[in-house]
Amino acid sequence: MGETGRRWTLARRPDGAPRASDFALEPFDLPQPGAGEILVAVSHHTVAPGVRARLAADTYAARVEIGEPIPGNGVGRVVASGDPRFVVGDRVSGELGWASHMLVPAGAVQPLDPQVFRDGVPDEAAVGILGSSGLTAYFGLLDIAAAQPGEAVIVSSAAGAVGSAVGQVARIRGLRVIGIAGSAEKCADLVARLGFDAAVDYHEADLAAAIGRAAPEGAHIYFDNVGGRIADAAILNLAVGGRIALCGQTADYNAAAPRGLSTMVQLISRRITMRGFIVHDFADRFAKARREMAEWLRDGRLISAPTILDGLERAAEAFAGQFDGTGQARPLIRV
Amino acid sequence: MGETGRRWTLARRPDGAPRASDFALEPFDLPQPGAGEILVAVSHHTVAPGVRARLAADTYAARVEIGEPIPGNGVGRVVASGDPRFVVGDRVSGELGWASHMLVPAGAVQPLDPQVFRDGVPDEAAVGILGSSGLTAYFGLLDIAAAQPGEAVIVSSAAGAVGSAVGQVARIRGLRVIGIAGSAEKCADLVARLGFDAAVDYHEADLAAAIGRAAPEGAHIYFDNVGGRIADAAILNLAVGGRIALCGQTADYNAAAPRGLSTMVQLISRRITMRGFIVHDFADRFAKARREMAEWLRDGRLISAPTILDGLERAAEAFAGQFDGTGQARPLIRV
Repeated sequence: MGETGRRWTLARRPDGAPRASDFALEPFDLPQPGAGEILVAVSHHTVAPGVRARLAADTYAARVEIGEPIPGNGVGRVVASGDPRFVVGDRVSGELGWASHMLVPAGAVQPLDPQVFRDGVPDEAAVGILGSSGLTAYFGLLDIAAAQPGEAVIVSSAAGAVGSAVGQVARIRGLRVIGIAGSAEKCADLVARLGFDAAVDYHEADLAAAIGRAAPEGAHIYFDNVGGRIADAAILNLAVGGRIALCGQTADYNAAAPRGLSTMVQLISRRITMRGFIVHDFADRFAKARREMAEWLRDGRLISAPTILDGLERAAEAFAGQFDGTGQARPLIRV
Repeated sequence: MGETGRRWTLARRPDGAPRASDFALEPFDLPQPGAGEILVAVSHHTVAPGVRARLAADTYAARVEIGEPIPGNGVGRVVASGDPRFVVGDRVSGELGWASHMLVPAGAVQPLDPQVFRDGVPDEAAVGILGSSGLTAYFGLLDIAAAQPGEAVIVSSAAGAVGSAVGQVARIRGLRVIGIAGSAEKCADLVARLGFDAAVDYHEADLAAAIGRAAPEGAHIYFDNVGGRIADAAILNLAVGGRIALCGQTADYNAAAPRGLSTMVQLISRRITMRGFIVHDFADRFAKARREMAEWLRDGRLISAPTILDGLERAAEAFAGQFDGTGQARPLIRV
């Protein structure tokens, strides 16, 4: 094709919290798809913190090697196809990358559901509230934690893509929602705009007591995106028989030695059930969940609230900013 | 009555691992039971490590104060009764103490079931394999972990009262059993006498690898009595979808700062469910479970194998020995 794209690659493995300088933005020649491949022009992509695990030398997930592109969920259009399932112009989402273009196996992306992505539901919702993060919230809350109307849920990283969806789905399903976030501004936004019942700044010196003031009778569910000290404080506010949906451990991803929980004994005395999960296990129910959430989006009960950042060059900084608290809430890169 | 008994009391709060000198053996005048009370002559009592939690200044359980008797499950006979439910000579078990005699509310003990404690099933089994420890094993394994025939289970503190029962109940129910214990001698005994399929010494430098050699295809269940490093090594050998019955955290009971798990991320990637439990929640099913286990005892498939230690004066040392690895397996004090 002779054309050139741009993409971020791994320059060096992060040591602790990732920095923008761990990544390099490089031009590359756009390849022609082989059989079974497609070339996608990426319009939007995430810089989800979960990618951090794949940058470690020792990881359970598919590891990113030095010089390789950084993965990220994205949405875009097919610009060249070597697979009969796709034609040029098709709208797709899936694991693409921090890039203007990605050559991927056709099986790695899904066409956007025309019943979902219409009437004010934008394509980029496919990688936000209607993508992995929203689906993670939906299945983690409703299936893994078996949330019931009238219960109270505590959610950490509440201003994040997953956490903000957890709180909203919980509110829609009739739960009381207590969010934990990293600034007074984020906390105020959770209550004012996203309809949380309360929000607590995790910088509180006695975080457990602060959560307790927001959930004086204890909560039934804790949706854990972070682990560590914040999880301990939430667990100290769970009622007997409480459930924990174990979704992420951002506190550990950067740690040389994971801190773990100080509240293992409380898990016993309070008969708590903790379940780790991966949203892809629910893949056969994604389409139905997306249509339900799209209805909530259209009737205004669910708000998709990414912070759109213009320009691929902002990806590395936006990613790093999520680990040191300086970043925007729910960043989404518009390429 | 004018008679004198002997009992252990708390001399000072343990700092880290308990020592025998944290306790004092004292004479006391045997009291006359008031209304609703009974005086029990204790024949046997446990020195279960779980009592450690009640000796801490900051504990979820009912705290033992300085100078108070040390609680422990025991079995004995009523020697004086102020309650119409009991007459002198009745055989009872329940929370008594490290003592020759205990004055307790009548509701704190249960009469021994004559269908169970006969034909070679001795009274002291009521505080061992047919008491809290055996019932904890039974319900933790079969209900909390939902053990199924053909599965593999890893159990820590396998030479302990709970762990040795877990392994035997699992074997009887058709599971493959891998025990973790504190010496080569204990490991050999688990395999040779209690019918474990394999046993691993927790002093192995690479404990996870050693467990892996015993469970090359991974285990479905981990029955956790200890937490910390040993739990981490077990979790690294759990298959996707594994279950953890969270029963005890002896590694934490003595720790100034609980260590927690280093494997929280693996709980997510392996979709593991961890459930804390307290055996007393199953109290309405104790009688039936005891009768089933008593049949196993009578037909020889289940072995009650306490180490009987003669003399109340040995209680404090036997208790302390369970924390530093010097103690006997499954100590039971014969008063």
